Amino acid sequence: MSNTIGNKLKLTIFGQSHAPCVGAVIEGLPAGMAIDTDRVRAFMARRAPGGELSTARREADEIRIVAGLNEAGRTCGAPLCAVIENADARPGDYEALRDLPRPGHADYTARVKYFGHQDRAGGGHLSGRLTAPLCAAGGICLQLLARSGISVISRIAALGGVEDAGELAATTADADFPTVDDARGRAMRARIAEAAAEGDSLGGIVECKVLGLPAGLGDPVFGGMENRIAALLFGIPAVKGVEFGAGFAAAGLRGSEMNDPFRLREGAVVTETNHAGGILGGITNGMPLVFRMAVKPTPSIGREQRSVDLAAGRETVLRITGRHDPCIVPRAVPCVEAAAAISVTDALLGRRKERN
Amino acid sequence: MSNTIGNKLKLTIFGQSHAPCVGAVIEGLPAGMAIDTDRVRAFMARRAPGGELSTARREADEIRIVAGLNEAGRTCGAPLCAVIENADARPGDYEALRDLPRPGHADYTARVKYFGHQDRAGGGHLSGRLTAPLCAAGGICLQLLARSGISVISRIAALGGVEDAGELAATTADADFPTVDDARGRAMRARIAEAAAEGDSLGGIVECKVLGLPAGLGDPVFGGMENRIAALLFGIPAVKGVEFGAGFAAAGLRGSEMNDPFRLREGAVVTETNHAGGILGGITNGMPLVFRMAVKPTPSIGREQRSVDLAAGRETVLRITGRHDPCIVPRAVPCVEAAAAISVTDALLGRRKERN
Amino acid sequence: MSNTIGNKLKLTIFGQSHAPCVGAVIEGLPAGMAIDTDRVRAFMARRAPGGELSTARREADEIRIVAGLNEAGRTCGAPLCAVIENADARPGDYEALRDLPRPGHADYTARVKYFGHQDRAGGGHLSGRLTAPLCAAGGICLQLLARSGISVISRIAALGGVEDAGELAATTADADFPTVDDARGRAMRARIAEAAAEGDSLGGIVECKVLGLPAGLGDPVFGGMENRIAALLFGIPAVKGVEFGAGFAAAGLRGSEMNDPFRLREGAVVTETNHAGGILGGITNGMPLVFRMAVKPTPSIGREQRSVDLAAGRETVLRITGRHDPCIVPRAVPCVEAAAAISVTDALLGRRKERN
Amino acid sequence: MSNTIGNKLKLTIFGQSHAPCVGAVIEGLPAGMAIDTDRVRAFMARRAPGGELSTARREADEIRIVAGLNEAGRTCGAPLCAVIENADARPGDYEALRDLPRPGHADYTARVKYFGHQDRAGGGHLSGRLTAPLCAAGGICLQLLARSGISVISRIAALGGVEDAGELAATTADADFPTVDDARGRAMRARIAEAAAEGDSLGGIVECKVLGLPAGLGDPVFGGMENRIAALLFGIPAVKGVEFGAGFAAAGLRGSEMNDPFRLREGAVVTETNHAGGILGGITNGMPLVFRMAVKPTPSIGREQRSVDLAAGRETVLRITGRHDPCIVPRAVPCVEAAAAISVTDALLGRRKERN
Repeated sequence: MSNTIGNKLKLTIFGQSHAPCVGAVIEGLPAGMAIDTDRVRAFMARRAPGGELSTARREADEIRIVAGLNEAGRTCGAPLCAVIENADARPGDYEALRDLPRPGHADYTARVKYFGHQDRAGGGHLSGRLTAPLCAAGGICLQLLARSGISVISRIAALGGVEDAGELAATTADADFPTVDDARGRAMRARIAEAAAEGDSLGGIVECKVLGLPAGLGDPVFGGMENRIAALLFGIPAVKGVEFGAGFAAAGLRGSEMNDPFRLREGAVVTETNHAGGILGGITNGMPLVFRMAVKPTPSIGREQRSVDLAAGRETVLRITGRHDPCIVPRAVPCVEAAAAISVTDALLGRRKERN
Repeated sequence: MSNTIGNKLKLTIFGQSHAPCVGAVIEGLPAGMAIDTDRVRAFMARRAPGGELSTARREADEIRIVAGLNEAGRTCGAPLCAVIENADARPGDYEALRDLPRPGHADYTARVKYFGHQDRAGGGHLSGRLTAPLCAAGGICLQLLARSGISVISRIAALGGVEDAGELAATTADADFPTVDDARGRAMRARIAEAAAEGDSLGGIVECKVLGLPAGLGDPVFGGMENRIAALLFGIPAVKGVEFGAGFAAAGLRGSEMNDPFRLREGAVVTETNHAGGILGGITNGMPLVFRMAVKPTPSIGREQRSVDLAAGRETVLRITGRHDPCIVPRAVPCVEAAAAISVTDALLGRRKERN
Repeated sequence: MSNTIGNKLKLTIFGQSHAPCVGAVIEGLPAGMAIDTDRVRAFMARRAPGGELSTARREADEIRIVAGLNEAGRTCGAPLCAVIENADARPGDYEALRDLPRPGHADYTARVKYFGHQDRAGGGHLSGRLTAPLCAAGGICLQLLARSGISVISRIAALGGVEDAGELAATTADADFPTVDDARGRAMRARIAEAAAEGDSLGGIVECKVLGLPAGLGDPVFGGMENRIAALLFGIPAVKGVEFGAGFAAAGLRGSEMNDPFRLREGAVVTETNHAGGILGGITNGMPLVFRMAVKPTPSIGREQRSVDLAAGRETVLRITGRHDPCIVPRAVPCVEAAAAISVTDALLGRRKERN
Repeated sequence: MSNTIGNKLKLTIFGQSHAPCVGAVIEGLPAGMAIDTDRVRAFMARRAPGGELSTARREADEIRIVAGLNEAGRTCGAPLCAVIENADARPGDYEALRDLPRPGHADYTARVKYFGHQDRAGGGHLSGRLTAPLCAAGGICLQLLARSGISVISRIAALGGVEDAGELAATTADADFPTVDDARGRAMRARIAEAAAEGDSLGGIVECKVLGLPAGLGDPVFGGMENRIAALLFGIPAVKGVEFGAGFAAAGLRGSEMNDPFRLREGAVVTETNHAGGILGGITNGMPLVFRMAVKPTPSIGREQRSVDLAAGRETVLRITGRHDPCIVPRAVPCVEAAAAISVTDALLGRRKERN
């Protein structure tokens, strides 16, 4: 396990799906910061299950900051620890699948890695539940960034074969199912309902932009903005791809199309286009930082699937019972924003401001 | 700057394009390993410039291991330091572009970040030249992996609008321009020649597979195989996207299509398909680890481009003179293999083998 | 702040003296380990306040493991999180000293570092209270070490001018006030009572030995056993010095006296003496690892002391009210054992066992 | 091996006593810094062998900065790599002792750890030779600190039973054999000559002070100034103890004696005494940072010593031939200063300056 990430802002995540709690320890927040926990809760609520298209498990996701604040409720320089109780923990539900690894889940690989001692209940530490502390940390970082005029916006760029239309330029109207084009959003929802009705699930693509960034953030070669963000994003279960700016489409462009010409706008250096996604050589150039992330369809589906009975050593079929999220993409959106916020905060806090 | 990466195998890269040398320090190699430097050189030669389609700068890339070997030429447990002289260093060539940031390059962002003190010559530390020590480290790791029956293969999956055909299953015939389908490879070369003739450049997609991996490698949540590989790959200049297994295509699949059913083959657990790319929950499942990486077109092109004269504070145009690589994709292939080899070695050395 | 330490075993400590809780996150424990929480509690009880010579604040130090265990109560490979509630938190007690830094405490330095936002109550994050999670982590590591036949013993080597007599060779009879010579122990207790009666406090020296270590542990140059143990020990408040083997006395010896001759005992390589303290070149040699640690007298004393009113900007005197621990040395003993256990576990888990 | 240390300033050391070179990679130096290599050389010369009381091996210690400088010779933000050739490398000299571990050296422990593959020649990577790159890094950091008005002074506090007299308050007259009291210095030299004549060796104590430090440096709990400095100091071969301020003597003081009263001097908060050694709670308080370090006598002595023939599996005696340094304490002084400078620079670069 490796659950600590970051340099100047160091995040450690702990907990399992059905342990008493999940939580995050955050080191490096500047002392004296007031944290609006209501806003953190509101942010985390976008990740929480319980929507009409979502899984049956309902969790209040009540965040409790148990360390790191002074008597005035401000950060005190000590590591902040945020804990979220697992109110609805029911480890027993998973006993039937004890020796039957679910396709697309980490049941089999965790079993091999931990010699059968992994926490099986609900995916244990490798559950999507661990994105709750990620969002708690992200929600806090977003408040820190806001003070420097930095904001993070995002949308569902594609879902179930439907692509969103238009350009992502501002916070979308519907934060819980963010698309630029409402009709496309409705079409996506319809696809989810269809898939759910058929006992199946869908994936999608999330697009995210960080606005208001100064030029000069990022620590190449291995701590550039892309390295940092990617390393965090792949900590979100179900993520299978990450691209920045033109991304994979860049492979089909010519240099004369891809290169973003430099221009001056009111004395400031900008680029005419933004195929670079705001990053050159791992360092921000002052343009919006743009990335997209591919989310695979929820591996838990209602249909019969082939698997192996690891105890008996023979092939078999399994059927996952209970309701499951037919599409986690909407809930992945705040996770992506959280990852972006954490990475950017880390880079921002580590930046050298004064010329030598 | 952040030029150290890895846990059990720790890699530090140093040098600039026109400094006396570039190099790598590698900590954590097991003591007693014989290194075949001829094979490392042969591997590095695939990255070196000088091919018919390549830039004029020719470098022998003569690797010299100056630390970490005992008198028998085996690793001694101390950090290994490999140095590659910059034989053809000509810092003066770049003076004309002193205040004119080249579009698509890190000239502007490095200037902001380092307050004008960055090494301008040839991209300085942010040059593709830094992939030479990466390949040196990768070439060494590949030898270590080979002893465990692990190998890395790759191909150019797409270039200049041409996609390779067939499945990547073994080392390709042409290591310098690897494609599964020869005709497609020739078509790609033709596209490069066309672009070069027009003073333009091309990008592409590299596909890579790691074969022979045991199940159980990777340290989620932030040290999973995807996190590690992505963090390294984005240290290669020009990389704009990374995907594993079905990658971005996973976003368009249903769960019933994406999930890889588990099966038994001669007593071993395998998956029928490999949309997961050999990784579930960040941990290898014993199937080939598969990923693809998008490389943008070389930013140095012969055409006139818009830029800004940062000293004068006005918009202008620039033209980059001299010959430049119209497509670095073939040279990126060994870099991708190196990144894969380094990441896998790190995970492998950190693995706990014995059951508790 | 920097509250994470270790490589293969990574410890993160959080909390403040009067926050809701203090706690530890431990990454890297092998999966499948049964933890005897009663024994951890018993170990932690030695650190807890409340003895006849101790401070008035009494805390049950009830450890609760909220993450990292599977349904069978064994480690599951995920980070373990142990939380200890601050049952007796009374932040208000410290308001009178708001602007009067206590001599010998971190009040002033924390105020400067955190711009006045530090948690003032009871020393905040820099309180001895933070040794509770250290001992929780140490208590768990001791159980892991015991299975490899490794144990940690210690004693109060000096206190209030009284030196213990005899050689530390086994666990002492009195775990709460460990000395080899009972009479010397009684004399030390008498000195504490005297100092307490005079509103003063005492320091001392703790000696610690790790028995049963294999040769070959430690990662020089900067991860040798001495570096690791020292880095942890100086995380215990009031520690002002650390020495290994002959330590400072080595400075007065000749090489012919200091060097430990190698001998064979039943086929095993041993040293005749152990001035090296079981470490050569940062690596264990199979002999007992021996170190000593100097603990300064408790800075909280009943006497009037000079200080500065930072708000008013003038010199003043202060008197700390309430009962305070006249000597924390006995309570520091388990902290030292914990630090030793954590360092050794980290080195042990990172050791390469197989010859290349 | 673990040869990387530091957070904001990251130092990696490589090389062996008889490898082609030793060297250091330093990440995190601010861009734009001019490095006076002559002064670095002069600083390193104090560490180099060759004095009248020193070993026969003479090395120019010619430092060459092969990476990290721009065309103007200033730091460019990229990692700086400094290389020192091993001009006098003669690996063959050590063959006679192949299977006879020298008492007090790391021969035996390295052999166990690296399964016999360690570089035997002259101690390999565990040689005092590795303090050359440490001093190179330290010499550079000292220049950076000087610009902030921070300086490092030191002296030999004790050697061969002779203690220096007086208070260390400024750079001593004799940089190569620094004592405050000349007569004591002469007495120490006489003791070295005596020991050398008898084929024996001596240890000593080095005292070091860092002047001009601002209050507020250090990152407790595990990155406090004491933790950092100690972790670095124990990377210097032969160091067996480290103490800060009153150090081990603090164990014998009462709280009323140990506590440093706060006072105002021209509006600034100071302490009347400095038993804390300038550090409270791991954080600097603005007073001189004071520490002492115990150096054991050189393990290489001319006398016959008992050892074990590891190949034959029997006890034997060995005699180390050739001239050896009868006392490395004077050469350890710049190493101590280097360690202090590196630790302080790391803390200084990581400091948050602006109030939130």
